[in-house]
Amino acid sequence: MTTIHNIPFADIETGMQRQYSKTLTERDLLLFSETSGDYNPVHLDAQYAATTAFGERIAHGMWSGALISAAIATTLPGPGSVYRSQTLKFSRPVKLGDTITITLTVSDKKDRVKLVTLECEGRNQHGDVVVKGEAEVIASAESLSFEI
Amino acid sequence: MTTIHNIPFADIETGMQRQYSKTLTERDLLLFSETSGDYNPVHLDAQYAATTAFGERIAHGMWSGALISAAIATTLPGPGSVYRSQTLKFSRPVKLGDTITITLTVSDKKDRVKLVTLECEGRNQHGDVVVKGEAEVIASAESLSFEI
Repeated sequence: MTTIHNIPFADIETGMQRQYSKTLTERDLLLFSETSGDYNPVHLDAQYAATTAFGERIAHGMWSGALISAAIATTLPGPGSVYRSQTLKFSRPVKLGDTITITLTVSDKKDRVKLVTLECEGRNQHGDVVVKGEAEVIASAESLSFEI
Repeated sequence: MTTIHNIPFADIETGMQRQYSKTLTERDLLLFSETSGDYNPVHLDAQYAATTAFGERIAHGMWSGALISAAIATTLPGPGSVYRSQTLKFSRPVKLGDTITITLTVSDKKDRVKLVTLECEGRNQHGDVVVKGEAEVIASAESLSFEI
């Protein structure tokens, strides 16, 4: 069990950063295929993937998007956030065993609607950018924490 | 087993449409939580979710993004696509048992780089828009088909 807690809107400041990391396992590929319905062999069939330009199995591009969404939902603003929008540019494939670190940076906040704008960047263990984008999220006014 | 096949770049026309549907199950929520690492109780704990503004468990916003990605990867252009970018606006929560239909519409194609632009829209079984955005994808020049 770990505890996740949010950063209430009033405590969020421009320039604030949080990071979130995850290492891609074969299981993650299978689960993403099941939950989305995308069973393309480039994600699941090692023999086929070896014949592609990638040379091996790669994650679904949107898995990187799922990590950004998890970073937002667990760290900044954290639980109680309402996701409004996300832009994503996929720049490099993610391979099995790659550790992706998402960095979120607050670039703007709008008091009237409690809207927070976040610059989102994901890099692999070599420091190469794999995904980049911008998110808009409504942050909770209250302090929330959960055992998960 | 079903067969998925792509639409090679040369056969893609502006205005072309494809649809992809999936019904949200409890298992999908669990799998998305595992693959992303986002175990927020609003997705997993019925008792807690009942106390929120949503009144019941809802999907991770990015699950709708995963459906758009699956629609692209399995229908238009289908297998062999390389995902370059995606914008997403989340407008309504997705609840257990909701059937989301993604409609992809080709809005542009650029011959030199084999880039296809797609308008992406997801609606629930009541016809309400839950997610909307634009994708840029490189389509394969070759015909590909796979048993999945």
